[in-house]
Amino acid sequence: MSKRVVVVGGGFGGLLAARGLGGGHFDVTLVDRDNYFLFQPLAYQVATGALSSVEVAAPLRQVLRRHKQTHVVLGEVTGFDLASRKVVVEHLPNGEERRELEYDLLVAAGGSRYSYFGHDDWAHHAPELKSLDGALLIRDRILSAFEAAEVEPDPAKREAFLTFVVVGAGPTGVEMAGQIAELSREVLSNEYRTADTKTARVLLLEALPRVLTTYSTRLSASAERQLVSLGVTPRLSTPVVDIGDGFVEVEPQGRARERIATHTVVWAAGVQASPLAGLLAQQAGLEVDRAGRVEVEPDLTLPGHPEVFALGDMVTVRGQTLPGIAPVAMQQGRHVARSIRTGERTPFHYRNKGELATIGRRRAVGVVAGVPVTGFVAWLLWLGVHITYLVGFQNRVLVLTRWAFAYLLHGRGARVIRRR
Amino acid sequence: MSKRVVVVGGGFGGLLAARGLGGGHFDVTLVDRDNYFLFQPLAYQVATGALSSVEVAAPLRQVLRRHKQTHVVLGEVTGFDLASRKVVVEHLPNGEERRELEYDLLVAAGGSRYSYFGHDDWAHHAPELKSLDGALLIRDRILSAFEAAEVEPDPAKREAFLTFVVVGAGPTGVEMAGQIAELSREVLSNEYRTADTKTARVLLLEALPRVLTTYSTRLSASAERQLVSLGVTPRLSTPVVDIGDGFVEVEPQGRARERIATHTVVWAAGVQASPLAGLLAQQAGLEVDRAGRVEVEPDLTLPGHPEVFALGDMVTVRGQTLPGIAPVAMQQGRHVARSIRTGERTPFHYRNKGELATIGRRRAVGVVAGVPVTGFVAWLLWLGVHITYLVGFQNRVLVLTRWAFAYLLHGRGARVIRRR
Repeated sequence: MSKRVVVVGGGFGGLLAARGLGGGHFDVTLVDRDNYFLFQPLAYQVATGALSSVEVAAPLRQVLRRHKQTHVVLGEVTGFDLASRKVVVEHLPNGEERRELEYDLLVAAGGSRYSYFGHDDWAHHAPELKSLDGALLIRDRILSAFEAAEVEPDPAKREAFLTFVVVGAGPTGVEMAGQIAELSREVLSNEYRTADTKTARVLLLEALPRVLTTYSTRLSASAERQLVSLGVTPRLSTPVVDIGDGFVEVEPQGRARERIATHTVVWAAGVQASPLAGLLAQQAGLEVDRAGRVEVEPDLTLPGHPEVFALGDMVTVRGQTLPGIAPVAMQQGRHVARSIRTGERTPFHYRNKGELATIGRRRAVGVVAGVPVTGFVAWLLWLGVHITYLVGFQNRVLVLTRWAFAYLLHGRGARVIRRR
Repeated sequence: MSKRVVVVGGGFGGLLAARGLGGGHFDVTLVDRDNYFLFQPLAYQVATGALSSVEVAAPLRQVLRRHKQTHVVLGEVTGFDLASRKVVVEHLPNGEERRELEYDLLVAAGGSRYSYFGHDDWAHHAPELKSLDGALLIRDRILSAFEAAEVEPDPAKREAFLTFVVVGAGPTGVEMAGQIAELSREVLSNEYRTADTKTARVLLLEALPRVLTTYSTRLSASAERQLVSLGVTPRLSTPVVDIGDGFVEVEPQGRARERIATHTVVWAAGVQASPLAGLLAQQAGLEVDRAGRVEVEPDLTLPGHPEVFALGDMVTVRGQTLPGIAPVAMQQGRHVARSIRTGERTPFHYRNKGELATIGRRRAVGVVAGVPVTGFVAWLLWLGVHITYLVGFQNRVLVLTRWAFAYLLHGRGARVIRRR
């Protein structure tokens, strides 16, 4: 009988692990809450109407359709039983409340989410950008804010509607702020009659003293200049202390608290591992770190459990410091598939091919093969990499088409506000 | 001062009226609940994952961006005051509860919706296909039913999950049933491991004795044959008498009541005019017909109110019998714009260029320039017409791309199930 492999999570890591096992002699089951793989690095483009939601989402079954030994199960993984080798799945689509899946080998790839630093009530006012739901909610809010500004007679209130706040100046926050600025200055400026969308303020709040802190100070400075040239106001060393209905409160270093009137806050800060990391750690008698991650062996197995692999944003690898980005999860997914296929446990080594963050049309920063790049060249590289790694040929064609229109005509076609 | 024209409704009729007035000396305000024009004839393709929601939705502001005298206001029209020439708008995006818009000329184009024959509780079990929200809800349900069948061990329950019911065999119902059959037989058949999607039943329920009753009996018969060849089971003379959780009850003519076990019911029957028709009628001291429509003069003005035009699915035109289809509303929209521009009131004449309904790949029926067409030729004509009338060049390119993929690779890329 073929060995049963259960893969939990259909993100970059889980999907590549499942793909890597598909041709072999394994009975693979991939479990995910969603029926699609989300190309998360482009979720922010959905939030600004540049791409449609389905263009960054590939149905998992379609991606895995040629792997006849691979099953996809829609459901939420809520527990593990490492002793009896079972995964607990809840909320199955047929109405079943709970089912246990037995495995010989387990691959846990639950990913991460944004955390609100203990202020979960902020989530309501400041949706996050890790999920498609979050991206669509942000799109609704951004577009509705412009609509509100258009019909609002009071200038102060109109200014609040035209104030957009992005919390967190990592790659996602930087890209998001740049997109909102482009939207207000270029795309929408000839579509409104009363509101002057060019006067919109886009504030990028960051608790640390620079943007893109994982990059070099030189690249951070370049990114900051490019943001400013687009119309974004980066506010550094400016932690958020409160978010409520119609406002964000900040406490800039060495200065008094300040209240910003706004109706649109995007959250892109404080990454936290999936709760699955904690569940695994508990079962294995381990601790999680402050970000909720569990530490795995260099070969990506759970300590004491050579039959359990864990990878991606929900783990740290012993002896290595890795960034929480898609290429790491992808390489880990492939590594795990290879380990399972060959039966050998070898240490994982990350090949750092580089990292890129775009800021807007013809603007980006990054490091490719160790060389820092900025501006137009970085932007072209960013384009190429994202098109290459998008899943599905159809989505590549559609996304390229949308980007061509956006580039040539300053259009953003995917601008639907869902009904309240 | 320019004359103020308020256009209520941004569908085919309202949008073409607003467009036709844009270049003139009018101060035009278009009011709609949604910020987009929905290309309703293709909404069913969103419901089956063939197209993405934004590909059939064009932002109203984008369509009207060059018309500097045209304002778009997002909000719900809830009343008219014909005596003082005001339109009442509620739920504005800035939080304003109510606002009155004054007009010199009014164009009312509220369209229609499906009615549940007085059984509004059925709506919960059988979403309709007139809105984008409805289409996305149907997509969620259809795709979830296949997911449920895949994990359901009980064969009887699995059969219920693989039973799809479409109510109403007008063009939308026929197209929808054909798409579900294609989805289950061609697109999904190699993606599921446990459920055999090819065994899915697609029932098309119709109270009348034939499909597409507005077409000739010969075309109806052709459409029925094409549906059967695709795998659809048309059940004619079979009115629905009850819909509940997990079932549809029908009472076929001359036979006993029958209960069909299903979790996916699509509603495409019983068109009812927008409530705006009733509000207008009330103000003008008129009655509405059984479908809730108000009768307008041959020049499309409201009797006794030469300053009020009404058009599209919410009206009947005195002395004319017109089908409730997009070309009628479009021609009426253009006619009204011309009447307003010239100041002349001339009777509206519908130029019937034809009508087409598609059933699936290379399958369609219709009448073009008076000539009945079926099969591949009809399908090619259908394609051409729909691409031509889609709003926005970008959407045309994207839709053509999706259709090419669907045709060549049997793919349906837009298959996201939203989170419950």
